[in-house]
Amino acid sequence: MSVNSIAWQARFEQLRSNKAFETLVIAIIIVSALMIGVKTYPLPDIASRVIIVLDWAITLFFLAEITVRFLGEPVKRRFFRSGWNVFDTLIVVVSLIPIEDSELALVGRLVRIFRVLRMVSIIPELRTLLTSLLAALPQLGYVVLMMFIIFYIYAAVGSTFFAGINPGLWGDIAISMLTLFRVMTFEDWTDVMYETMTVYPWSWAYYLSFIFLSAFAFLNMIIGIVVNVLEEEHRRQAKAAALEAGEPTLADLREEIQSLRRLVSERLPR
Amino acid sequence: MSVNSIAWQARFEQLRSNKAFETLVIAIIIVSALMIGVKTYPLPDIASRVIIVLDWAITLFFLAEITVRFLGEPVKRRFFRSGWNVFDTLIVVVSLIPIEDSELALVGRLVRIFRVLRMVSIIPELRTLLTSLLAALPQLGYVVLMMFIIFYIYAAVGSTFFAGINPGLWGDIAISMLTLFRVMTFEDWTDVMYETMTVYPWSWAYYLSFIFLSAFAFLNMIIGIVVNVLEEEHRRQAKAAALEAGEPTLADLREEIQSLRRLVSERLPR
Amino acid sequence: MSVNSIAWQARFEQLRSNKAFETLVIAIIIVSALMIGVKTYPLPDIASRVIIVLDWAITLFFLAEITVRFLGEPVKRRFFRSGWNVFDTLIVVVSLIPIEDSELALVGRLVRIFRVLRMVSIIPELRTLLTSLLAALPQLGYVVLMMFIIFYIYAAVGSTFFAGINPGLWGDIAISMLTLFRVMTFEDWTDVMYETMTVYPWSWAYYLSFIFLSAFAFLNMIIGIVVNVLEEEHRRQAKAAALEAGEPTLADLREEIQSLRRLVSERLPR
Amino acid sequence: MSVNSIAWQARFEQLRSNKAFETLVIAIIIVSALMIGVKTYPLPDIASRVIIVLDWAITLFFLAEITVRFLGEPVKRRFFRSGWNVFDTLIVVVSLIPIEDSELALVGRLVRIFRVLRMVSIIPELRTLLTSLLAALPQLGYVVLMMFIIFYIYAAVGSTFFAGINPGLWGDIAISMLTLFRVMTFEDWTDVMYETMTVYPWSWAYYLSFIFLSAFAFLNMIIGIVVNVLEEEHRRQAKAAALEAGEPTLADLREEIQSLRRLVSERLPR
Repeated sequence: MSVNSIAWQARFEQLRSNKAFETLVIAIIIVSALMIGVKTYPLPDIASRVIIVLDWAITLFFLAEITVRFLGEPVKRRFFRSGWNVFDTLIVVVSLIPIEDSELALVGRLVRIFRVLRMVSIIPELRTLLTSLLAALPQLGYVVLMMFIIFYIYAAVGSTFFAGINPGLWGDIAISMLTLFRVMTFEDWTDVMYETMTVYPWSWAYYLSFIFLSAFAFLNMIIGIVVNVLEEEHRRQAKAAALEAGEPTLADLREEIQSLRRLVSERLPR
Repeated sequence: MSVNSIAWQARFEQLRSNKAFETLVIAIIIVSALMIGVKTYPLPDIASRVIIVLDWAITLFFLAEITVRFLGEPVKRRFFRSGWNVFDTLIVVVSLIPIEDSELALVGRLVRIFRVLRMVSIIPELRTLLTSLLAALPQLGYVVLMMFIIFYIYAAVGSTFFAGINPGLWGDIAISMLTLFRVMTFEDWTDVMYETMTVYPWSWAYYLSFIFLSAFAFLNMIIGIVVNVLEEEHRRQAKAAALEAGEPTLADLREEIQSLRRLVSERLPR
Repeated sequence: MSVNSIAWQARFEQLRSNKAFETLVIAIIIVSALMIGVKTYPLPDIASRVIIVLDWAITLFFLAEITVRFLGEPVKRRFFRSGWNVFDTLIVVVSLIPIEDSELALVGRLVRIFRVLRMVSIIPELRTLLTSLLAALPQLGYVVLMMFIIFYIYAAVGSTFFAGINPGLWGDIAISMLTLFRVMTFEDWTDVMYETMTVYPWSWAYYLSFIFLSAFAFLNMIIGIVVNVLEEEHRRQAKAAALEAGEPTLADLREEIQSLRRLVSERLPR
Repeated sequence: MSVNSIAWQARFEQLRSNKAFETLVIAIIIVSALMIGVKTYPLPDIASRVIIVLDWAITLFFLAEITVRFLGEPVKRRFFRSGWNVFDTLIVVVSLIPIEDSELALVGRLVRIFRVLRMVSIIPELRTLLTSLLAALPQLGYVVLMMFIIFYIYAAVGSTFFAGINPGLWGDIAISMLTLFRVMTFEDWTDVMYETMTVYPWSWAYYLSFIFLSAFAFLNMIIGIVVNVLEEEHRRQAKAAALEAGEPTLADLREEIQSLRRLVSERLPR
């Protein structure tokens, strides 16, 4: 790399971490979000044309911003290691493709909507929040698997017995799982139940057992997360409090006592 | 300020903090609350006239009470620093404006209803409760922002795809957000879903992903509050328990050991 | 009291705390509960007559049981100090009144239903549970008052504006509070909202603010209970754990160190 | 047992705990689960025949697998002590019975569905999860009993008063309990209430008191579980943290101080 290009890189790096520049980017993202909202209302012709121009201006600004961030990166390869950078680049690149086809136009609109997610990528607090949300998921793995097994078994039983009663609700295993999810949210679940009870009067046991099982598994899931979060918080807080107050640990105290003991042994020889 | 006015001020201050006076104010507020309730029933003519008189009597009493509290304040400027005093004064002043116009009459009725809130301003425990409720809000800032972004994106997607299916639910981004809030409360959400599934059979994924995302973010919000409350409570309680039992801290123990060590060093010179 | 009557009293006291007698009482209560259930089904004539006889037998048994418990009580006045004894006696006495009148017959049936509650009075664990449930209530006092104020204000506003739209839901302040409770349980709340939005398009703000406020206050209530329960449990458990393990308290340790210090001072005079 | 059979047993035991064999079993279970799902869709004739063949292949594989596990068990009697082994054997045995009768065919389909539960029996993490779920149940015993009493009393009152209004909801005590469960899930509960309010205008008190009581008891149940889980977790974590950091206990410290005291006493005789 020539000296010149290093100087340029440093300048871009500076611009990238400039507070005013960051605020400008956030402002542009908000404008692009508002535009998405405005477009859902019926608009006069002139407004629609202004929006098309603004939309292109925003796309170009985002392109410039991502270029600055890319050029400001000392090690270029590292840039695409961050999922957020890949996401941002993708959004900008897809926005650049001119689309006329009505099918693809919808994709273009969707991409413009996902631009709002750049808000998450640019504000560090939101990024941390999302990361911690995603970090909480894997530890739930087995409870989610258990819940899926419960759903699958009940859906299989449901579509075996009730498919003839209402195919719209119990036609196949996929639609049965959707119906069970509905039952789990208590959304008009008694209508579903009363319908099958006309044919199988004991089918209330099917619904009640499902509600209890899923509620219990769900409760377990929640408790799992809460316990984890609380424990972590607790340990962190306890450590912080001890450090703040200059509170010694029990190990420190043992150290003190043992040192005293050495002193006594030393000064009072047998 | 003359000696005379200081004497008056002291007298008002005494009245203000008088227990019987406070009880009277609470009683009057309760009467005014009951009157608001009574007015929603069809009343004989005589009762309506009694209520109008009573209403004026209450307004005048509140005016007198706020005057007493204002005159009883040693430093007058400090009076309007308290939001509660400003609120009380506003309520009384607006009640005094005679309104005949039917449009403004509604405002007058509203003001009389808000008088019930004076209950909160006069009972210290309720005031503390409200303050602590409001104090819990700002720390939720980023989670609320995250939730708003989720709502906004889903509402934009929803009104892009479903506006043609049911404009009453998905017509523009504002109404779509209201519909999504409805989905989040599980209120007839399957009706909304089944309707869009006739056109887009895969739209169940839209609803389910939204429900999971919003439930997860909501859960995170709750956990955030609970953790905060518990931590604070825990620290407070631990400190209180230690103080109560005369329990020394670990730092106290270290102090004791080190003092013992100094004693040993002193009495047993090398 | 003669020696004879003391001997009788001791015999009754023994019977009262006899395990087999207690089991018999529980069995009779279960039979009486089952009879209540059976009576809700259409019965053949013979069964109805059997039930009437059984009902009288149960009433007489309960009368005998309460007499035993009363006579077994060493200090008679103490018997009626227990709310449970008063409750049991009342249930038995009212059951004894022969009622033919159809209006009073309903009261008679109700009293027989409340006999099931004797289950709670006879099983100590259930009694403890109920007592602890009731004990948790008063500490919620102010949050409940706050919630009532929120309900009252919203109901007053609601019946002021919406009474003309649907008197069945907003006719007076009482029915408005019932409607708001319904909104709080999310039960078809959007139907209520859409109806008022046709007249006041901004009325969604009324519902959303109410839902947020009540949910927030409710959450606070729950957290309050949870914190209290957890704290108490925590303190109890910590104490129990320390006692179990023979773990000394920090104060014990200080005692040890100070005693050592006294020893050093004593043996090593200046 | 001959030497030869012991050698065979060891070989089976090895196969049983072989990682590849376990993965194969899980794969077969997944295939059998997918087949159950596929069967709920309308299938061409050829697919149905393939499924019948596959079904028999799976049954035979399960038979082989359970035989291996049985033969691999050193002490044969211990095999049937595990509930999971009994469950697996039952599922396989019932699958082997050839059933043509349409009534029994349903049982056959059900048994094939329950095969999915073998997933739980084969994955240790799921087995632990289920065991811990079941372990949490008995401690709830009395709260569940209390809740049942509440339901029973309200159902008895409900069917006494409302049976004439809507026999479909309040006809007998069983159907009344189902209706009350529906009210507890807030599923169209106001429809149920408004109907009875036309005859008994005060019946809202019945529903509201029931909702409050059951919500309160339910809350208590949840808190009970949470407290238990948290306490256990807390103790476990605290112990683990102390061990990890080599943190001494307070008892260790006392030990240290007392040992020091003995040293001082020894070296400094009176």
